[in-house]
Amino acid sequence: MDPTRIDPIPNPAVRRLSLYLRQLESFKRKDRRTVSSKQLGESLHLTDAQVRKDLAYFGQFGHPGIGYRVDDLIAQVRRILGTDKIWNVLLVGAGNLGRALMAYNGFDAKGFRLVAVFDSDPSKIGKRQGPFSAEGSDASKPKRFFVIQPLSELKSTVEKMGIRLAILAVPPDAAQELADQCVESGIRGLLNFAPVSLNIPRDIAINSVDLAVQLEQLSFQVNFSPLVQLG
Amino acid sequence: MDPTRIDPIPNPAVRRLSLYLRQLESFKRKDRRTVSSKQLGESLHLTDAQVRKDLAYFGQFGHPGIGYRVDDLIAQVRRILGTDKIWNVLLVGAGNLGRALMAYNGFDAKGFRLVAVFDSDPSKIGKRQGPFSAEGSDASKPKRFFVIQPLSELKSTVEKMGIRLAILAVPPDAAQELADQCVESGIRGLLNFAPVSLNIPRDIAINSVDLAVQLEQLSFQVNFSPLVQLG
Repeated sequence: MDPTRIDPIPNPAVRRLSLYLRQLESFKRKDRRTVSSKQLGESLHLTDAQVRKDLAYFGQFGHPGIGYRVDDLIAQVRRILGTDKIWNVLLVGAGNLGRALMAYNGFDAKGFRLVAVFDSDPSKIGKRQGPFSAEGSDASKPKRFFVIQPLSELKSTVEKMGIRLAILAVPPDAAQELADQCVESGIRGLLNFAPVSLNIPRDIAINSVDLAVQLEQLSFQVNFSPLVQLG
Repeated sequence: MDPTRIDPIPNPAVRRLSLYLRQLESFKRKDRRTVSSKQLGESLHLTDAQVRKDLAYFGQFGHPGIGYRVDDLIAQVRRILGTDKIWNVLLVGAGNLGRALMAYNGFDAKGFRLVAVFDSDPSKIGKRQGPFSAEGSDASKPKRFFVIQPLSELKSTVEKMGIRLAILAVPPDAAQELADQCVESGIRGLLNFAPVSLNIPRDIAINSVDLAVQLEQLSFQVNFSPLVQLG
């Protein structure tokens, strides 16, 4: 499949792909083998036509009279999202949000492994952070620790561990410089939690999570409800 | 203005409203008095037509030959988003993510004031969390503390403090029950960080931030780039 021949895919369809995956994984946990577009859309308040249209951007996955095979569609969606393989991810910023991300045990099951943590604060560098519970808080699994590294080790660590994704959990006034350093070190995608707009090359992916914006969208809804419902 | 007479407003337009507000606030800090739709769109990689169309859902704000008055448009957008007033917000969950949210000092300037924190863990209840720096880390401003309250005080606190928004920073298996408790206590909008889909009444606003989904969207982009660029 030649990517240059595919029509541009709308962002909301890509976002919904993640939601379909969650829903399919939930069906799988309940031992469901097949699912219709109607069933897949139902809990997400989407029509079956919308589900079929979204999935059709990426291929032909349904079987007439059967619907979608749950296992098969999970594998296909993971392949499309790129999470059929494990991504090594680094974190810049070992403050409160950084610690929350280190402790967050929902990444592993989704194909992301936090492998390195960096900070510019000399008092934090070399300190061991943890223990954090591994996925599922399974007591038999080893606890995780992170040793905070200096930024001078960013580039060599990215190369050595083949890291392509970085999470920025840093103050707004430091975010641009640190984003630049990540890109120079070979990072291809940035998840930014700092409430600033970052200038990055167009071939680098960026996704920003501004926590105040999330609340603003809520206050809009509470003010204007029931005009819109967020996806 | 009768809200029932307004056409439904697309979610992406509402999301961009928050971005316009950030951009306008940045112009204001640089003492800009007026701005064109082209200038407003530029740093967000949006066309001037898109900016005008988005704003037109909410009213007529531009002035021929002048553009938008920065102060005026900031006030209008805040009014639309509901952040022209202060919203009292509560937090459920005093774990690592909860602590990061308590320490996050970007809410106040946007019109949100975290006023109460709840947890179900008896070992946390009554404990003082902090000190956390106030907005801008200004040393002259008082440090903030939170005393973790039991869930039995949820309803009375919501009523006493007129709280309408809640942040859920709890494990996935506790999220539905705690969301229900929030709604029963009078909460009108929920910001959910648990990676689960919650069933809530249709007249309650909900916005979910699934951190793994944010990374999934990035890995998709890095895989498929340059087909899409996230907003």
